[in-house]
Amino acid sequence: MTGHPFLRVLKLPITCIVMEVIVIILFAVFVRYDTDTDARKWHKEKSHDNKSNYENDFYFRYPSFQDVHVMIFIGFGFLMTFLQRYGFSSVGFNFLIAAFSLQWATLMQGFFHGMHNGKIEIGVESMINADFCTGAVLISFGAVLGKTSPVQLLIMAVIEVTLFAINEFLVLSVLNAKDAGGSMTIHIFGAYFGLGVTRVLYRPNLDKSQHKNCSVYHSDLFAMIGTIYLWMFWPSFNSAITAEGDDQHRTAMNTYYSLAACTLATFAISAVVNHEGKLDMVHIQNAALAGGVAMGTAGEMMLTPVGSMVVGFLAGIISTLGFKYLTPILEEKFHVQDTCGVHNLHGMPGVLGATVGTITASLASAEVYGEGMKDVFPDIYEGKTTPFKQAMWQGLSMGVTMGIASIGGILTGLLLKVPIYATPPDTMCFEDNIYWEVCLCHKEDSHQELAAVRTEEVEKPLNG
Amino acid sequence: MTGHPFLRVLKLPITCIVMEVIVIILFAVFVRYDTDTDARKWHKEKSHDNKSNYENDFYFRYPSFQDVHVMIFIGFGFLMTFLQRYGFSSVGFNFLIAAFSLQWATLMQGFFHGMHNGKIEIGVESMINADFCTGAVLISFGAVLGKTSPVQLLIMAVIEVTLFAINEFLVLSVLNAKDAGGSMTIHIFGAYFGLGVTRVLYRPNLDKSQHKNCSVYHSDLFAMIGTIYLWMFWPSFNSAITAEGDDQHRTAMNTYYSLAACTLATFAISAVVNHEGKLDMVHIQNAALAGGVAMGTAGEMMLTPVGSMVVGFLAGIISTLGFKYLTPILEEKFHVQDTCGVHNLHGMPGVLGATVGTITASLASAEVYGEGMKDVFPDIYEGKTTPFKQAMWQGLSMGVTMGIASIGGILTGLLLKVPIYATPPDTMCFEDNIYWEVCLCHKEDSHQELAAVRTEEVEKPLNG
Amino acid sequence: MTGHPFLRVLKLPITCIVMEVIVIILFAVFVRYDTDTDARKWHKEKSHDNKSNYENDFYFRYPSFQDVHVMIFIGFGFLMTFLQRYGFSSVGFNFLIAAFSLQWATLMQGFFHGMHNGKIEIGVESMINADFCTGAVLISFGAVLGKTSPVQLLIMAVIEVTLFAINEFLVLSVLNAKDAGGSMTIHIFGAYFGLGVTRVLYRPNLDKSQHKNCSVYHSDLFAMIGTIYLWMFWPSFNSAITAEGDDQHRTAMNTYYSLAACTLATFAISAVVNHEGKLDMVHIQNAALAGGVAMGTAGEMMLTPVGSMVVGFLAGIISTLGFKYLTPILEEKFHVQDTCGVHNLHGMPGVLGATVGTITASLASAEVYGEGMKDVFPDIYEGKTTPFKQAMWQGLSMGVTMGIASIGGILTGLLLKVPIYATPPDTMCFEDNIYWEVCLCHKEDSHQELAAVRTEEVEKPLNG
Repeated sequence: MTGHPFLRVLKLPITCIVMEVIVIILFAVFVRYDTDTDARKWHKEKSHDNKSNYENDFYFRYPSFQDVHVMIFIGFGFLMTFLQRYGFSSVGFNFLIAAFSLQWATLMQGFFHGMHNGKIEIGVESMINADFCTGAVLISFGAVLGKTSPVQLLIMAVIEVTLFAINEFLVLSVLNAKDAGGSMTIHIFGAYFGLGVTRVLYRPNLDKSQHKNCSVYHSDLFAMIGTIYLWMFWPSFNSAITAEGDDQHRTAMNTYYSLAACTLATFAISAVVNHEGKLDMVHIQNAALAGGVAMGTAGEMMLTPVGSMVVGFLAGIISTLGFKYLTPILEEKFHVQDTCGVHNLHGMPGVLGATVGTITASLASAEVYGEGMKDVFPDIYEGKTTPFKQAMWQGLSMGVTMGIASIGGILTGLLLKVPIYATPPDTMCFEDNIYWEVCLCHKEDSHQELAAVRTEEVEKPLNG
Repeated sequence: MTGHPFLRVLKLPITCIVMEVIVIILFAVFVRYDTDTDARKWHKEKSHDNKSNYENDFYFRYPSFQDVHVMIFIGFGFLMTFLQRYGFSSVGFNFLIAAFSLQWATLMQGFFHGMHNGKIEIGVESMINADFCTGAVLISFGAVLGKTSPVQLLIMAVIEVTLFAINEFLVLSVLNAKDAGGSMTIHIFGAYFGLGVTRVLYRPNLDKSQHKNCSVYHSDLFAMIGTIYLWMFWPSFNSAITAEGDDQHRTAMNTYYSLAACTLATFAISAVVNHEGKLDMVHIQNAALAGGVAMGTAGEMMLTPVGSMVVGFLAGIISTLGFKYLTPILEEKFHVQDTCGVHNLHGMPGVLGATVGTITASLASAEVYGEGMKDVFPDIYEGKTTPFKQAMWQGLSMGVTMGIASIGGILTGLLLKVPIYATPPDTMCFEDNIYWEVCLCHKEDSHQELAAVRTEEVEKPLNG
Repeated sequence: MTGHPFLRVLKLPITCIVMEVIVIILFAVFVRYDTDTDARKWHKEKSHDNKSNYENDFYFRYPSFQDVHVMIFIGFGFLMTFLQRYGFSSVGFNFLIAAFSLQWATLMQGFFHGMHNGKIEIGVESMINADFCTGAVLISFGAVLGKTSPVQLLIMAVIEVTLFAINEFLVLSVLNAKDAGGSMTIHIFGAYFGLGVTRVLYRPNLDKSQHKNCSVYHSDLFAMIGTIYLWMFWPSFNSAITAEGDDQHRTAMNTYYSLAACTLATFAISAVVNHEGKLDMVHIQNAALAGGVAMGTAGEMMLTPVGSMVVGFLAGIISTLGFKYLTPILEEKFHVQDTCGVHNLHGMPGVLGATVGTITASLASAEVYGEGMKDVFPDIYEGKTTPFKQAMWQGLSMGVTMGIASIGGILTGLLLKVPIYATPPDTMCFEDNIYWEVCLCHKEDSHQELAAVRTEEVEKPLNG
């Protein structure tokens, strides 16, 4: 512990305010409305190109944006409330770092691949991209959940968002890979970044708070709210920034069937690996979502419905087995303490998704895609590349992403190890009480009181 | 109990995997993208018919689809979490059988009324229809909730989805009835099928687990999440597959006012039937939704806003009275143990809805509908039938649906009585613990610990 | 207490039924489908104006409507479940008075500014407006939460909706102010009306039930569901009835960034004002939303993204400081018992929003808005007014709204003081048990039983 107590108490507020002020200044200098959100420009374009209001990008993408938004704030936030005494922090810090990350992502994604005449122009598509980037940060948050202070999380977000934007630029603009739903740029990136951080922050004595690192009945039901929302809206996530028309439609449908098949696989494997044949809430809450992760790259391609289902089925199997067998090995052998098991939900299914994307790209043919090739693989359509080469770039992108994420995570972990961030001690991990005013009011008494109330009621009637 | 213990434990996994593999094989053989989801076909049609991307069916129906999806997975799932110790199973088995049913429904609805050149072509409309069919299965699930194993539920889903598709074909394509929101095909079908099953599975000694068959404070709040989502999105449900334009718009609005009036009626009757004038959560959670059920047939017709409100008002009254007076009679006199009261929420309001549809159809006139008659009653518009005849077909459809559902439910119940499905014993109904790993970790200690934490906090400061 | 016990028990049902019957009669006489929901009229207009179905207002506004709907029923409803023993009433009475208010609002808004040839024509835009008006009633509900009977709340809704419609007419149609997201008409109005009511209903002995007026762990998590939904969908709220095209798009985006900045400010100030640097759930649940309130007027204007962030940042600071310092003063010095702190969340941020709207209007220029001026400031576009005059009307509107709301609230409070509404006594405030059948079933036993279950399980195996 360092610094004057006064300073210690002010670490979080100072961090929040300094970061928000920096963001505001950068927005003032660089950020402008795009054509679809600017009053003058939209009306000019409308009359010039004879457009109608329903051609504004808002109507193509805003419903999908809101679904993505729900995934980020409700989905991730409540998924992590499974911990019995970390519910406030799960949903609260998720809220804080997401609210920060989406602002920072607007700037970083703008700087690296969205500048127009020196300005970042924003609209609903950039909002979706900012939420996507935020998703990667929240995945990493899952790996370190319960063991990091909010100041550490904010610092992590600053670095991760920046590296995310760089990696995204490399993958999508330099290597020209396709990854609309982010199997690589979001899931692999977020997972391996988080694993890197948590590896460096390894706590050999974490078992001191291990009794808090588990769920209770109602905390598991809260977590299911997160799970179900993620599951339902994943079709919107994967299709949110694909090309308009058949692309959005097909991506959503592929993801829908992938997730359905994944759910059956998850229930099956969860019961198989339990010696009594019982189901484990951890698997249902997480592995059932792997089918969405695994469709992040190939979802927009002509994978066919059955192809999507096979991918989802495999993803569910891999992910559930990972939770059962790989997580303990990672912790004991490799000193990777992955609180939410993001390696099982985002890491491995992300790799599966990137691989499926690579294979599907290699099979692209004009016969199957017709004129739609222009939207899905513009480089192949224009003859700039071949399906085989496109597949190579896809595969290379996976490797680049894993590399940048892992190294970035490790370096970030080292930075977060500096003892200036009010990190919780080993005995106080997974505990809301050190960050939040937790009221204990009268819970003990509630039954006696309620009994009293019933008596009272007879004596003290309603007024009127 | 039959079979080797090893086999018993594997019943659920084997069922899941066998069924998913069958689905995958059938998808491989029969299922293809439709014109709006296929890259080649959509682009061909676009250039051929001079269409724009915003005319892709995705933009007309995907927001409604997602609302329906929320109703199926959050709405039904959480509505059933009211049971104090069956929350995992309520939301978990809801998740499992819904994920299976939507795949199976795609196949069955395709086989019975969606084949094109020997293939089933799918897009957002078939996704909505698959979710609708799933809704019927979940209604039946409500009738048997707590008393059936997941294997039984999956077997039930296989049969029910198949019969649903047959009945839907008869009602919509043979009898040419209108039923866009499914008062008949979804609600009457699901309710009477479920009642048939639960009648055959009657347990005379169910009172042995009756003390678990009730709610606690927080389980009722979780259930309200389900209720409110169903209530809010029912306008989307009823309008999701009506014709584009005024039809979707009118159906949504009619349902909105019906539900509002229904809510007032439910609160009123709930207080009236209680000797102290208190409200009953069971009524609010369920009967307030009857106004949506009752608009499933006439919602798209020119029922007028006030007509919708009258229907909703009646639905709320009937449904609440059913919960209070009919449910005990059904159980004691007719040996129908209807856990969630689906007869009150879906059965009777469904009959009301079908009746209102019959009456409203009989009153259809060119003066009121104008050219819109083509969308609502195409047969009347084309002179193939008269309003009176249309009404006859509507009424007949209700009868056919009740017959197929009841008999199908009874036969399914007989099949589910064969003692091979790991059914829970009478003492263990409404109990998660036999299917799920339920953690008891430290709940007892939490107050003492938290007190300890407060002391500790002073001694073990944050690091940094 | 007055009247025969029989009558007392019937107060709520009689109120509900009488009010619903009056609404139904008025709907029968006055309410009709508008052009976009009427079968005949829409098809006539379509062929006459050569329109397409996707130009039906449904596709421009229904997704936003559903987001608003979620805010009203889930957002407000669950936000108020923070009280440990008032969860049923919070979400239940929210449900009841919202379902009534939206019907009554359809009529009142129609009477005051929506008559066509003596009829009120309705569609998705009027549905959004009805939900908006309902929002104001729910804000006032927050001020009196826990201290009023449902009959009082329904009477309050009748009056408040009526005054809301009158004030809305004055502000939007007489003073020609802009207020698409309702900083003035919804938030200022709802807050000051509620404060007026609660001032008159001041209970000097409310401390008798003060031990119930607080949260427990899980009730705070339920409340966070409400918070997060309000936060996520506020962009839809503010943009729901702005002009189509860039206006909806820009308003949503401005609100998105305002809320993000507001969240950082809220976390910062919440930790600053706590002597241990801990965060307070009350602040996070409420003040983080102030950024949405403060964008209700200027959201559609060319405020720029950075402008929106500055407004949100200020709103978060003001609101959190209000919760910490102003609420106790209001109660102790001014006898205003504001249960949910609506003055901090809606009152002050609403005033900020109205002020920002005034300033932004005064800066409107043709250079910035181009042809878009026609949608945002039609009077300026048509030369009927100047930016300066427009700003004057904006400011005057704020004053008019505060006046009508405060006086209306005080008069309503006086009416509600008449002892005929079955008001709860001071000792029974914040207590579900007087309105609801609250089950206590077996909660005490649940651990012992569950232990028993585990033993039982070994002895009573599954059937099959």
